[in-house]
Amino acid sequence: MALLYLSGAERAAVWRPIFERELPDVPFLDGEAAVADPRDVRFIAAWTLPAGIVERYPGLEMILSVGAGVDQLDFAALPEQVAVARMITPSIGEMMRDYTLLGVLAMHRQLPRYLDQQRQKVWKAGPVELARRRRVGVLGLGQLGRATIDALLPLGFQLAGWSRTPRTIAGVETFAGTAGLRPFLSRTDILVCLLPLTPETENILDADLFDALPEGACLVHAGRGRHLDHDALLAALDRGRLADAFLDVTDPEPLPAEHRLWTHPQVILTPHVATVTDFEEGAVCAVECIRAHLAGRPVPGRVDRAKGY
Amino acid sequence: MALLYLSGAERAAVWRPIFERELPDVPFLDGEAAVADPRDVRFIAAWTLPAGIVERYPGLEMILSVGAGVDQLDFAALPEQVAVARMITPSIGEMMRDYTLLGVLAMHRQLPRYLDQQRQKVWKAGPVELARRRRVGVLGLGQLGRATIDALLPLGFQLAGWSRTPRTIAGVETFAGTAGLRPFLSRTDILVCLLPLTPETENILDADLFDALPEGACLVHAGRGRHLDHDALLAALDRGRLADAFLDVTDPEPLPAEHRLWTHPQVILTPHVATVTDFEEGAVCAVECIRAHLAGRPVPGRVDRAKGY
Repeated sequence: MALLYLSGAERAAVWRPIFERELPDVPFLDGEAAVADPRDVRFIAAWTLPAGIVERYPGLEMILSVGAGVDQLDFAALPEQVAVARMITPSIGEMMRDYTLLGVLAMHRQLPRYLDQQRQKVWKAGPVELARRRRVGVLGLGQLGRATIDALLPLGFQLAGWSRTPRTIAGVETFAGTAGLRPFLSRTDILVCLLPLTPETENILDADLFDALPEGACLVHAGRGRHLDHDALLAALDRGRLADAFLDVTDPEPLPAEHRLWTHPQVILTPHVATVTDFEEGAVCAVECIRAHLAGRPVPGRVDRAKGY
Repeated sequence: MALLYLSGAERAAVWRPIFERELPDVPFLDGEAAVADPRDVRFIAAWTLPAGIVERYPGLEMILSVGAGVDQLDFAALPEQVAVARMITPSIGEMMRDYTLLGVLAMHRQLPRYLDQQRQKVWKAGPVELARRRRVGVLGLGQLGRATIDALLPLGFQLAGWSRTPRTIAGVETFAGTAGLRPFLSRTDILVCLLPLTPETENILDADLFDALPEGACLVHAGRGRHLDHDALLAALDRGRLADAFLDVTDPEPLPAEHRLWTHPQVILTPHVATVTDFEEGAVCAVECIRAHLAGRPVPGRVDRAKGY
């Protein structure tokens, strides 16, 4: 029984001692060259998987994504019996909450307008709106969406949330499923996207969705680049349907230098920095996944392959 | 007995009906031309006072600043027996809290760095720090400082506050007076200035203060322009003593077009928009000041002229 590790050296330096201390019966094999007998490999930790890897390890039981997402994995290429888990680290929620709170407040207080004025050396005050008169809507009510809502609630924003299946959250108006999307959007001044990327949510931020928001709404997007129709966003900004956008993700990443999102005055763009998976927290989470799997307990972060998250 | 109103027409349109309804015995005189007998004027509502105005109204008992500040008034020119009150409106705290939270999060998540990268079309992720590992210090623990602290506390920042006289706030390390300033600064990664402007606090944000902060600290300034030595700030940014600054106030305002603060890549500058005094809330507050004064009760927002706030 062994773990085959297929990720960076910096992370390995943190993971190895934690595995050696916590799971001495599961040797930590750094790279395929370290594998003596392929039948020993029961677990693989990786971000992306080399082609044909699954076929080389017939005893494989679980793949551990070293990050919070699994949309980089091709589930169709994985045998049905191989489990997939993603690292749900405690810090991820805190990091995302700080980022989305920054994004929402930047939209709420018209930061792109003032950054543009600063560039033009124009000193001109606009109106100030109160948080309790602003309607924020969060797309996706998993760990990250909930952390964001928890941070926005005490500020008095009028909050709503949308998820695939119905949820109840105190102080938040919740909507669910296809039928719930349009009424959710029509009451949302600042939209925060924290959805997982699945075939159902790919390209969800498109012209139709922007048209369903109130005139002058704003977007904070910290999901995945492929949620967003980039051209539709630019068109919505240009025609005033959307006022501003705060983006952490694009497709592709890095965004090509010639892309208009770099220079659009209504766009603030950060280079996929909303969250990082802390190496130590990730290792602790991976150890717990393996322990739970071996003990027959529910594996934290276990992915429902049919849903894709 | 009458109120002489010396401010803008837009505010007057909101104030007059509220005064007529709530204080029918105190006529609302809009401008000096409306004064029939100068001895009737017991109250003046204004932002700045025309020269010699006090001498023209011998029955004057109280001046109501129509905004949250009184640093625009020359107390030395006012007779000792004339009271001064500022409008402490409920929304001011909420607006300031949203602004300072935006400023702190922008510093916490290195927004100036990413805005500069966006200008240069550079996609490069920096490290992500957790709020609970970041030390924020708030200068000034009045209504606005407290509102800011209340918003920062649930995010887990390590919080400290400094004020002229000692205060106790649960979950916050407090410092006071001249002796407390240096230890407060030495533990502060992100400094928020919300002090009132007085002779004691003028120019408090100077080279000495910046040198007392840890290397790479950040400044969020939403007090008054005259708190800040602008040249010392630029020098501290240029030599790396300070990493970034988020400023809402300058001296003078508007900031002259040739000033380096407009274009400094480590500076985000907004045109004095952290708070505005809502006209209706201001009128309600002014009515209460006059009622309290006439009834001999403590006047809300009454200024201690010796302290200057």
